[in-house]
Amino acid sequence: MYPPLAPAGQLAEVPIGDVRTEAGAIIPNVTVAYQRWGRYRVNEDGTNNVLLVEHALTGDSNAADWWGDLIGAGKALDTDHWCVICTNVLGGCKGTTGPSSVAPDGQPWGSRFPAISVRDQVSTEKQFLDALGITRVAAVIGGSMGGARTLEWAYMYPGVVGAACVIAVSARASAWQIGIQGAQIRAITGDHNWAGGDYYGGPAPVTGLSTARRIAHLTYRGEQEIDERFGTAPQRGENPLGPYRDPAQRFAVESYLDYQAAKLVERFDAGSYVVLTEALNRHDIGRDRGGLNRALADISVPVQVAGVDTDILYPYHQQEHLSRNLGNLIGMAKIVSPIGHDAFLAETRQMDRIVRAFVQFLDPEAVDSKGVIEYYI
Amino acid sequence: MYPPLAPAGQLAEVPIGDVRTEAGAIIPNVTVAYQRWGRYRVNEDGTNNVLLVEHALTGDSNAADWWGDLIGAGKALDTDHWCVICTNVLGGCKGTTGPSSVAPDGQPWGSRFPAISVRDQVSTEKQFLDALGITRVAAVIGGSMGGARTLEWAYMYPGVVGAACVIAVSARASAWQIGIQGAQIRAITGDHNWAGGDYYGGPAPVTGLSTARRIAHLTYRGEQEIDERFGTAPQRGENPLGPYRDPAQRFAVESYLDYQAAKLVERFDAGSYVVLTEALNRHDIGRDRGGLNRALADISVPVQVAGVDTDILYPYHQQEHLSRNLGNLIGMAKIVSPIGHDAFLAETRQMDRIVRAFVQFLDPEAVDSKGVIEYYI
Repeated sequence: MYPPLAPAGQLAEVPIGDVRTEAGAIIPNVTVAYQRWGRYRVNEDGTNNVLLVEHALTGDSNAADWWGDLIGAGKALDTDHWCVICTNVLGGCKGTTGPSSVAPDGQPWGSRFPAISVRDQVSTEKQFLDALGITRVAAVIGGSMGGARTLEWAYMYPGVVGAACVIAVSARASAWQIGIQGAQIRAITGDHNWAGGDYYGGPAPVTGLSTARRIAHLTYRGEQEIDERFGTAPQRGENPLGPYRDPAQRFAVESYLDYQAAKLVERFDAGSYVVLTEALNRHDIGRDRGGLNRALADISVPVQVAGVDTDILYPYHQQEHLSRNLGNLIGMAKIVSPIGHDAFLAETRQMDRIVRAFVQFLDPEAVDSKGVIEYYI
Repeated sequence: MYPPLAPAGQLAEVPIGDVRTEAGAIIPNVTVAYQRWGRYRVNEDGTNNVLLVEHALTGDSNAADWWGDLIGAGKALDTDHWCVICTNVLGGCKGTTGPSSVAPDGQPWGSRFPAISVRDQVSTEKQFLDALGITRVAAVIGGSMGGARTLEWAYMYPGVVGAACVIAVSARASAWQIGIQGAQIRAITGDHNWAGGDYYGGPAPVTGLSTARRIAHLTYRGEQEIDERFGTAPQRGENPLGPYRDPAQRFAVESYLDYQAAKLVERFDAGSYVVLTEALNRHDIGRDRGGLNRALADISVPVQVAGVDTDILYPYHQQEHLSRNLGNLIGMAKIVSPIGHDAFLAETRQMDRIVRAFVQFLDPEAVDSKGVIEYYI
């Protein structure tokens, strides 16, 4: 007997047993927390109506919130038709086991939590589906780190995944990404409150996490969009041009980044940030699989790719590379936006069209296809 | 009587009296350190053969070193013909007064050193030329922060500057630049060794400065160039994919950034890094001058502009903006390179052609013009 699915929209936890990482560490008694929307239905041929949505680095299972314009009754991911499932990622801090979780000895994992890869995140999610008795999914869809997981799903479990929509990500981490993400990790581990990763119970390395977020946010947003919004304007009531430097007298963009940093510090664990950023650094679809393009060519699952023309973090040429080399490309969409990487969250109108085109491929009856245009490949 | 010029290539210090900053602070008894190459000659009409070269953020007066392919006998900036002068910038740590210098009370300036603007750097350099009795310069030339200073020279002292060559910079700081530069400042000031800027005599905030440099370097280098060099390769003899995260087991790009950070920490003062980065944040040719394009239009000095097509820090559209709005544009050159911002230092062949074209404009007899092509404007 499998446990019943979580009530619509509510967070539920599923014990999935031990996870063995790609690099050989064991994480015992892992729990995966998730949310679900829409009724689960299995067809006579064994297929079902599950859409597995993958969240980004500091995202969470509440996909109906951060993708609220795309998920819901009558929306592109129509919960009257589909059963949308979104888990919290392994290594995170939203209910699924991560460095801030309590280990079997009753103490937080902290520095004892192993380094994980995107593949580990995906194999953990597979164990989660197994624990629920879900043997197939109609599709996996995700952007950024969620896109990396979606791509790994398509490679690792072709018998499970009906199709995949991979957004704003690359086939592997680029050196520039490893560099900027590594600098963020160093900013956190260089905070004197880091305590080697075992700061739980003491003061958290919020200064380091704030620095990391400021940097990260500027890779999530387009250079021209940020400038259009803030330029060199001072924050209201402050004067950043005074005779002495004063962190309380800021440019508007500095205030904006302070706000982004403060919000993240409140809602996210620094240890999880390090673990998940490290996982992104290890993202490489080609590792031990004959190389990048061989691995992409071996993906038989139909994949739709989308990218943002102004993405600083995952530049569009990386999605072009995916589209040239994937074994079964069903479409390639360019999101045109000054917003940069975050456009996959913010450009609702374009994302709606891209996701509807993808869902129409899954099931031509399941989506209002008015206005859906097939993409050139 | 004016002091004699420094012996060729040797660092010399010139006391220039008090500097009053744009924001109203006074820095008493400022010293400017500089180097010179080539004999100084004044023509009968009062013009002379001085080329004032402006260094970048962590550069220094040793221009014949960092621009060694461009400066010297027979080179584009031919020291057989021109007298090349390069000062160390106000706020730096290479001999010109900055936060690590000793204030009149015998203690380091530290937190008492005021915030300065690019304009203050330029007015200080003007006082330096006055102190040497040099009333004109044939041209000013510089890239990055040196380009910002060159642009301000052209606006502030049209009667002094014969022409200007402005490379890889913008008319003002963009919000993205302020953001990423502000994050670097926060990384340094968040280091618990920062001590409010008064760490001199104690341990320096090297962790924060290292973080700042890692970030900065990734804005100086093109994303594709970094990836071509390092990709996901491990540092030789290290394994960044082990079961636990270990800062001693690195990707090659992390080792490269560690090296860049360690080199900077050795040669540069964190207080100066903060002061100069803050000056870049305040860069705005239009402030109190009727706005950006009004100020650019008011520049009567002939200006040549150059930019790099892959520049992350000062994207090429910013140099296009300069070229559209400058009052007296003499040329616009695009450096085509995967290297990004640093191409103005690294792409020797292209820079040689750009600088020769500029020098030919200054004096058609003074340069081997073979192969020099006039630029489209």
